[in-house]
Amino acid sequence: MASKAKSNKLKIIPLGGVGEVGKNMTVLEYGRDMIIIDCGLIFPDDDLPGIDFVIPDMSYVEKNADKLKGILITHGHEDHIGAVPYALRRFKTPVYGTKLTCALIEHKLEEAKIADAQIISVNPGDRLRLGCFNVEFIKTSHSIAGACALAIITPVGTVIHTGDFKVDYTPLDNEPIDIARFAYYGSHGVLALMSDSTNAELAGHTLSEREIGRTFEHYFDIADGRVIVATFASNIYRIQQIADVAISFGRVICFQGRSMVNIAKVATELGYLNIPEEKIVDVDKLDRIAESKICVITTGSQGEPMSGLFRMANSSHRLNIGKGDTVIISASAIPGNEIGVSRVINQLYLKGAKVVYDRMADVHVSGHARREELRLMFTLTKPKYFIPVHGEARQLYMHAELAQEMGIPERNIVVPGIGDTIELSRASIKQAPGVHAGSIMIDGSSVGEIGDAVLKDRRQLAEDGLFTVVIPLKKSTGELVGAPEVISRGFIYVKNSEELVAGARSLVSELAGKFAGAHKSEWSGIKNGIRTALKNELYNKTKRTPIILPIVIELDI
Amino acid sequence: MASKAKSNKLKIIPLGGVGEVGKNMTVLEYGRDMIIIDCGLIFPDDDLPGIDFVIPDMSYVEKNADKLKGILITHGHEDHIGAVPYALRRFKTPVYGTKLTCALIEHKLEEAKIADAQIISVNPGDRLRLGCFNVEFIKTSHSIAGACALAIITPVGTVIHTGDFKVDYTPLDNEPIDIARFAYYGSHGVLALMSDSTNAELAGHTLSEREIGRTFEHYFDIADGRVIVATFASNIYRIQQIADVAISFGRVICFQGRSMVNIAKVATELGYLNIPEEKIVDVDKLDRIAESKICVITTGSQGEPMSGLFRMANSSHRLNIGKGDTVIISASAIPGNEIGVSRVINQLYLKGAKVVYDRMADVHVSGHARREELRLMFTLTKPKYFIPVHGEARQLYMHAELAQEMGIPERNIVVPGIGDTIELSRASIKQAPGVHAGSIMIDGSSVGEIGDAVLKDRRQLAEDGLFTVVIPLKKSTGELVGAPEVISRGFIYVKNSEELVAGARSLVSELAGKFAGAHKSEWSGIKNGIRTALKNELYNKTKRTPIILPIVIELDI
Repeated sequence: MASKAKSNKLKIIPLGGVGEVGKNMTVLEYGRDMIIIDCGLIFPDDDLPGIDFVIPDMSYVEKNADKLKGILITHGHEDHIGAVPYALRRFKTPVYGTKLTCALIEHKLEEAKIADAQIISVNPGDRLRLGCFNVEFIKTSHSIAGACALAIITPVGTVIHTGDFKVDYTPLDNEPIDIARFAYYGSHGVLALMSDSTNAELAGHTLSEREIGRTFEHYFDIADGRVIVATFASNIYRIQQIADVAISFGRVICFQGRSMVNIAKVATELGYLNIPEEKIVDVDKLDRIAESKICVITTGSQGEPMSGLFRMANSSHRLNIGKGDTVIISASAIPGNEIGVSRVINQLYLKGAKVVYDRMADVHVSGHARREELRLMFTLTKPKYFIPVHGEARQLYMHAELAQEMGIPERNIVVPGIGDTIELSRASIKQAPGVHAGSIMIDGSSVGEIGDAVLKDRRQLAEDGLFTVVIPLKKSTGELVGAPEVISRGFIYVKNSEELVAGARSLVSELAGKFAGAHKSEWSGIKNGIRTALKNELYNKTKRTPIILPIVIELDI
Repeated sequence: MASKAKSNKLKIIPLGGVGEVGKNMTVLEYGRDMIIIDCGLIFPDDDLPGIDFVIPDMSYVEKNADKLKGILITHGHEDHIGAVPYALRRFKTPVYGTKLTCALIEHKLEEAKIADAQIISVNPGDRLRLGCFNVEFIKTSHSIAGACALAIITPVGTVIHTGDFKVDYTPLDNEPIDIARFAYYGSHGVLALMSDSTNAELAGHTLSEREIGRTFEHYFDIADGRVIVATFASNIYRIQQIADVAISFGRVICFQGRSMVNIAKVATELGYLNIPEEKIVDVDKLDRIAESKICVITTGSQGEPMSGLFRMANSSHRLNIGKGDTVIISASAIPGNEIGVSRVINQLYLKGAKVVYDRMADVHVSGHARREELRLMFTLTKPKYFIPVHGEARQLYMHAELAQEMGIPERNIVVPGIGDTIELSRASIKQAPGVHAGSIMIDGSSVGEIGDAVLKDRRQLAEDGLFTVVIPLKKSTGELVGAPEVISRGFIYVKNSEELVAGARSLVSELAGKFAGAHKSEWSGIKNGIRTALKNELYNKTKRTPIILPIVIELDI
């Protein structure tokens, strides 16, 4: 009976994407069946020096891989698909998404040299049976084409997961979010809603993608020279809109930046992007075209070093931006990128370009629902239980507060953390003991091997650098067989600090005298004593605490 | 004649604060007389690891210290006064400012143990004669009390420097910006205007400080528990306003955070802050007071680690914030601090507090003029020449564009860079050869000794860490007298990477064999060869490039 009762519960386990914006991954488990929603990565901030990106710890899924029926991907942004290659190296399972989503995943798998994956394309409205789960993909609006919510019919009731969404009645593809399907499920009874919290702090309604078309028209109208627009490569709607306006003003389109060129190609092949072929020109041919007839669409809206716009601003791209050019940055800075974006804008001004960006004009709209849209989602789906997802803690809590305003009692709401287990039955929601979960840090070609100790060292090295002393000893006696050598990096410029270095060297020589005559078992104590004495000496003289690395070389001589 | 002609020019030389928001410092020079406007610091972003702050390179002033007649400070913010102690260690000169400005400078000098400075307090409307310069302080509005613009009457004409300003008709101190004085100078002829560009990107008019009072009233009205408000310690008006509202709701005030306590004390003594003494309570006494009667005003609005709010959010402060508390963050994030602020807000939500911040409600207004106010300043002063100051490049250029809209011809505008020399006569403005200028990076107790090489090392150490090999050689022959030792920090966790380390060690042993038999002059080439080989080996295996430090120990044995 106990085991039966247990299997009557649906478990929802977020492995990422709650308490953070990024690396979305959620497990749904019932009895012997498990599915995963999304499988993304997050780009680290400056707290994780040298880390390229971070993915969810998937060990819970690995341990239960025999239950896994598939991964459902809501849309093709990195924070939803970025960890798919890492997942598929650990467990084999089919991956489902709409056309563009699948194409973007396949591109990733190709780069990761993973050949035998099952990537299955679905259309909005399609239904899948995955073990005990019945899943319907529902069309939504977002800043990438092919975004869907999921209606998941489970043995205890229907769970709606919105994915990332906004309510756009006038989208560029003329297919608005499928309000009717949400209403359908609402009228048939929704057990739990999991809904996008990104903009839960913001009042009102996010503008339609179409609204910013007017701004583009204005700036294209007054531009005499080239127009360079930087935006997210994945925002096909934005690219379509920019291209349409550019062409209407008699300009040709040139794509720049690796991911922009890739995605434009894929999206064109799949029919998401429609630009007449003869209007697209290669960068090599731009010299022969009048500047007033050129529109460049490029990556770099986040000020990323090595991106198209960054290189154009810093004269390391053949499209050297200068006087007469108009640059439109059609994006807002993702938290953490503000300084980088700001630097690129300054650099462009210094080069004489006119720059248009979000502080000045409506050149960007968000892809996420604001409070009025979130209210609409509650009104449509009428859920019994609510779990805010996709947001930092403050956004999840604000969304939970909004749910209460919408009539959901506080006891029916769980604000989840990573690794929490939420157990749902027809008549209850509760938090059960959590599972092992967390972050795997990826640096270079290695996976998961960067631990906290290494990161702690990196942070200290960055703050105050390193001070190394090498102490050569006769192994048998502990006698010093040469003067200690002192080398520092990132600490002070040694040539300007002779006195400090000489002082450190003589301190070490003096203390290293203790090795001779000491028992071998005392050596590590002596070494620590040298480290401490040197730390104090350097701190007193400089008020800094470099990493101190005493290296004892034991020589058989 | 040539020398006479030269001395007929007024030189304006910004040593900081243009092309950046921070370390404002401008030299005005005519013949044998020199004055300085402001003397501030800037807090570095993550590009300068371990640097505490950055001040202007003042070597030009040092070289001409005999000409220097004084430093005029427009107001007491760090980016205007922070470098005064460093300046006064290099050259003796009187420093002028209003009461609060002087008190804040004196506090700094005390901490820096500088005793013999001449800090001279002036009132708005006061005039000073400094060599050939006549200076009047003009009352403005800003986010700190005692802010002034300067009218500087020079032999070639009047220069107006606005300092940081906004146009607040209803300021908390009931003394609006002295529009009439600007108009007076405008009607008598202003040669050049130097005006605050911080908000030159933003349309409209910055709200009056008084406007946000309503927001405070609303949140105090609905709060049941403690109200904790974080704001800038220097914003006396804000503190007054918060205290007034708190007291009107029957609450007592408790100040927290070192700079908040300090400035509240100074401002009260000088009469800028008026809170009945019996309404201020010490943190020790809060236990005896009902939570609904408590208002804490604290530092930490920028999410700074160790600040009052940060510690309260992270349970390392006796005022442990939790359920029932309302936290109002009455500030916006200074560029670069967004992530830190966001983290504190998340942490507060996780602890159960209600948090109110600028994305949700009008809890902050800027201290800087927007475009309509900047237009007013042009209209009042009617300058012949214009020099935008106090802003990043984009803000300076937008301000220059605005000046043209206001009728100043492009040829009469100079957008300055640090170290530029702008020469003004009655009938001309032009850029002359610049002076030596730049940044001095301050880390710990040392001054100016952190150079680019050290910073470059720190960045690389932070990204990929360090890999050290110690090679012990017999000095006379170059024979290896022991196995090379390998130590890494911040690169990989060595215990998990035995194979990598063993490979590196044998590579080094092999290459170090070349020392024996080689001429001494070839040793450094061999060492570089080892560095390169090791770099390639590690990159191939890990795709990372740690700093490689081969240390050759030459032993007299």
